[in-house]
Amino acid sequence: MTELYGAIEAGGTKFVCMVGTGPDDIRAETRFATTSPERTLQQALNFLSAEQDRQGPLAAVGIASFGPVDLRPDSPTYGYITSTPKPGWSNVSIAGATRAALGVPVGFDTDVNAAALAEQRWGAGRGLHSFIYLTIGTGIGGGGLLDGKLTHGLVHREMGHIRVPHDLAADPFAGICPFHGDCLEGLASGPAMNARWRQPAEELPDDHPAWALEARYLALALATFVCTLSPQRIIMGGGVMSKPFLFPLIRRNLLELLNNYVRTPEILDHVESFVVPPALGTRAGALGGLALAADVA
Amino acid sequence: MTELYGAIEAGGTKFVCMVGTGPDDIRAETRFATTSPERTLQQALNFLSAEQDRQGPLAAVGIASFGPVDLRPDSPTYGYITSTPKPGWSNVSIAGATRAALGVPVGFDTDVNAAALAEQRWGAGRGLHSFIYLTIGTGIGGGGLLDGKLTHGLVHREMGHIRVPHDLAADPFAGICPFHGDCLEGLASGPAMNARWRQPAEELPDDHPAWALEARYLALALATFVCTLSPQRIIMGGGVMSKPFLFPLIRRNLLELLNNYVRTPEILDHVESFVVPPALGTRAGALGGLALAADVA
Repeated sequence: MTELYGAIEAGGTKFVCMVGTGPDDIRAETRFATTSPERTLQQALNFLSAEQDRQGPLAAVGIASFGPVDLRPDSPTYGYITSTPKPGWSNVSIAGATRAALGVPVGFDTDVNAAALAEQRWGAGRGLHSFIYLTIGTGIGGGGLLDGKLTHGLVHREMGHIRVPHDLAADPFAGICPFHGDCLEGLASGPAMNARWRQPAEELPDDHPAWALEARYLALALATFVCTLSPQRIIMGGGVMSKPFLFPLIRRNLLELLNNYVRTPEILDHVESFVVPPALGTRAGALGGLALAADVA
Repeated sequence: MTELYGAIEAGGTKFVCMVGTGPDDIRAETRFATTSPERTLQQALNFLSAEQDRQGPLAAVGIASFGPVDLRPDSPTYGYITSTPKPGWSNVSIAGATRAALGVPVGFDTDVNAAALAEQRWGAGRGLHSFIYLTIGTGIGGGGLLDGKLTHGLVHREMGHIRVPHDLAADPFAGICPFHGDCLEGLASGPAMNARWRQPAEELPDDHPAWALEARYLALALATFVCTLSPQRIIMGGGVMSKPFLFPLIRRNLLELLNNYVRTPEILDHVESFVVPPALGTRAGALGGLALAADVA
């Protein structure tokens, strides 16, 4: 009998909770708005606890969390959201509260690392040992596997906050990141597009110059990630990437920027499978929770 | 009895070969100019073979190579230098030739990954699981460990070729990278400084504006590496970094660029131990060969 897992995708605007074994076997799912930590966590734990009564014991729970988070297993604040600008959510223990309430092993990682794990197990990262999962939406974040493992380093990646070349003559927009102004997230997130063009990104027509600029910034970031992480593939999801015509634009810009420097057929001959959309869509984060759970069960 | 290892640091301008067990026990060392692959490799193998006759058997040999190299163990060209612009050196088997000539296990990695391994074992990376080793000289390269392991990904890192913001009003220099123009290496390597200021970098006086600009570009790169790799420390070596006053300049720029975004005491409170020079100096690469050898022996 396959073990049953619980998942919590803790997002800054909404939570998604699931019980199941994988994408083809989701036994129960719920989503609700992120309010106060006490109330939101209680909703998640009530759901998992009720499902446990109904469907039988959960072998483990996995949490895919917005950040920054503490991922150091030996830290006294392991499993906490740490210094987020989101009001009320700094220094909140998520993993500990879940373990205490449900009495099961708890896996914990960033939302983007969890999504990467789900894509590796069931989606666009199958068979790969090194790839990047990016989300371009309200913010820009990235995670992934390197040589077969989720990696963390000192804290965890903050891939949305790299600086990219910004030609002020071509794009005088100053950027909206409260920390860095014109970092990648400040120039190319959904809210940055909204602010620059004074209308929601999803309403910009397909032939609007916004998209060529967006593809350029994203390709500049991808070129940097190719040079710093050497992925076998880059999976790009999130609200902004729901426009399919962005993918060929980004691929063309990336090849131009790399200019035959990294000579490998995966990039030069098969760029259409080097930069791809996620296979698991908006469920990647919560499914990542199930994958994290399976790994600690 | 400690086992004896051989090391080859294969550089684009010179080779360094060693026999020993570590930095405090180097039994023999030689260096010579890089000429043709046949002649240069023969010199290296003759040295190791003669030392083996003199000092007893080598348990293994480690090779720290300039690149690009093929690091995939299951590849038919594993241990090759692949598509280098250096005349004559494309598609040269280094690891295979060494194994065939000496009949011992051979470890093989990039020069910067090998240097990082040596710094972890004997130098500025002791006790760390995640850090970056950068060299800023004729070129700019980077390697390092992530969560305790040397990582490779699809090919290996090419950290010198990231794009950084380039303010053409403040610095109209176009950059010298033959592939990318004004990537980091194109703007901030030793030859880039020579070309911009029309004199060798090492002859520029300490109060020359060149150094503030250099520190800025390097700090921009460090900020990107912090966001993409989350290192516990960044070790900066190479000819350009032989000016000690660069370190405080770079640290100050890095803190300003991160602007309290990555809130961890290792960066915010101890930046002087976050950005540091190598402990092993110019010997890190060859010592990395000994470390690679120890790992495959």
